[in-house]
Amino acid sequence: MTAAALYGPVSSDLLLVEAALATVKEVEYEPLARMLTHVLAGEGKRLRPALALLSGKFGDYNLDTLVPLAASIELLHTATLVHDDVIDEAPTRRARNTANTLFGNAASVMLGDFMFAHAADFIASTGSVRLVRLFSKTIMSIATGELQQDVSAFDYSKGIREYFARIAGKTASLFGTACEGGAIAAGCPEAWVDGLRDYGFNLGMAFQIVDDILDFTGNEAIMGKPVGGDLLAGTLTLPSLLLVERSQSDNPVRRLFLSKRNRKQRLAEALQAIRSAGVLQEAEAVARDFAGRGIEAIGPLPAGEVKSAMLDLAEQVLSRSS
Amino acid sequence: MTAAALYGPVSSDLLLVEAALATVKEVEYEPLARMLTHVLAGEGKRLRPALALLSGKFGDYNLDTLVPLAASIELLHTATLVHDDVIDEAPTRRARNTANTLFGNAASVMLGDFMFAHAADFIASTGSVRLVRLFSKTIMSIATGELQQDVSAFDYSKGIREYFARIAGKTASLFGTACEGGAIAAGCPEAWVDGLRDYGFNLGMAFQIVDDILDFTGNEAIMGKPVGGDLLAGTLTLPSLLLVERSQSDNPVRRLFLSKRNRKQRLAEALQAIRSAGVLQEAEAVARDFAGRGIEAIGPLPAGEVKSAMLDLAEQVLSRSS
Repeated sequence: MTAAALYGPVSSDLLLVEAALATVKEVEYEPLARMLTHVLAGEGKRLRPALALLSGKFGDYNLDTLVPLAASIELLHTATLVHDDVIDEAPTRRARNTANTLFGNAASVMLGDFMFAHAADFIASTGSVRLVRLFSKTIMSIATGELQQDVSAFDYSKGIREYFARIAGKTASLFGTACEGGAIAAGCPEAWVDGLRDYGFNLGMAFQIVDDILDFTGNEAIMGKPVGGDLLAGTLTLPSLLLVERSQSDNPVRRLFLSKRNRKQRLAEALQAIRSAGVLQEAEAVARDFAGRGIEAIGPLPAGEVKSAMLDLAEQVLSRSS
Repeated sequence: MTAAALYGPVSSDLLLVEAALATVKEVEYEPLARMLTHVLAGEGKRLRPALALLSGKFGDYNLDTLVPLAASIELLHTATLVHDDVIDEAPTRRARNTANTLFGNAASVMLGDFMFAHAADFIASTGSVRLVRLFSKTIMSIATGELQQDVSAFDYSKGIREYFARIAGKTASLFGTACEGGAIAAGCPEAWVDGLRDYGFNLGMAFQIVDDILDFTGNEAIMGKPVGGDLLAGTLTLPSLLLVERSQSDNPVRRLFLSKRNRKQRLAEALQAIRSAGVLQEAEAVARDFAGRGIEAIGPLPAGEVKSAMLDLAEQVLSRSS
């Protein structure tokens, strides 16, 4: 689906966000300019900035503040990917070399820091201290969620509740902030700000669960990363947690984690078990449930093409295959 | 020298900054609380927050904004140390285990991100968008400086001019921002804001040059890191650059970098050459020159105990031995 079809009433304004993002790489120090050019060239879906602009449509749609807000959110997202890839030692992302592969870990940590700082500058340029604080709290949530993922790796005693807390921090908080920020920037009434944040947050939960399902079902060539990568890295996501919950004492996920031998064979067994146990369908139902809550949250908002686009987006998040 | 003697008129108010910093570790997620407790317990000199408070003394000394500003600056500094230690793979800092040693690289990257975000929240709580933008530009300078250090490692074709640009970014910018921020928060006239920033910036240049000298002359037990560590890591600082400049074609630094064999013996030769060539004295003179420029910059500001404390600080930065 094209961006125009997906993001309806804000698709053309996303070009202004692209233009703002393009200014980020305009730095004096040439090696940094090169690194920024690489990481910003990834053809992201620009879903988060689209959510910010769409939310802004419910109020005073002022692009002077909405564009830097949306650019800030996308840049923050890209910065977290740079740091994620360092800590996951990921060689590629969406079939492109990661920054850590091309420039090394040390440079990539600093590159991410630079991008966080530039995102902070974008958000400050809106002139709203409230938006800056929302921004900083969001990074704190993301960092905590990522930390939780690292700390609880290979730990199958942590249950589904911990998984929800983790993805709430690392993914859903930024989706919520995109919508909340857009609504605040546009001066929406507080009840709408809350509704839009809840829409974004729940959409983000659904998005991450689908992402975690795709780690088991996705096409390696399109995803640009190996199937089962989460499990190999020790990251237990909803499908594997559902399987662990069903058979506590003995299951293929546990066997994979317990031994360093025959990893390939044990991974294949775990993947097979997850695919055949019906847990992927169960996880999809949970994602659908979150998306439904999101749609419910914007129930009181006025109907129209913006709301329609948001309902379509929820459907799109559930049905995406890459 | 005690903090009371060093920071004179603001030493007691630094306790409020400590109290603000102590709130940072009050987080729900226990593993994060433990990590924050460790990295915040390091007995830093609190030089940067002292500079912010001292600068604030030249205007409306309002602790409601100056304390969060000072806490933000110290927290930002501590966050950069956490990321530095990850990228330098440093096992210890000031004789304490680093975060990366205790918690691993992945967790430390996220820990640093969390601290940056909390620092951003502190600065936003001042309510001043101007301070937020100063803050974000400063992180961009620091990240660029660190990146430059990483990119130019083992490259002795880069000269002293590049070294100055590098330490301006990674160290002096934050010293400048501490003073500039304090002056802005206190509503000082713009000419004083400029003068105080220039004082802080030049003091920071002197501070880093002295730091780099101490890498050759310091006491390992007090510094908590091995002598010659910079050279081993490929970081060329003022003393080694002065030596390279003197004998371009053949010198012990070049020999150390060219071969991976006999590293210990070659390092000893390089250290010996640097200690006997008079370049350490030359570097000290450069540091003294920067400190002098800093003192000059606050020449027009009113005399009194605050200015005296700032002059004493400049002297202290030059004479410190750890």
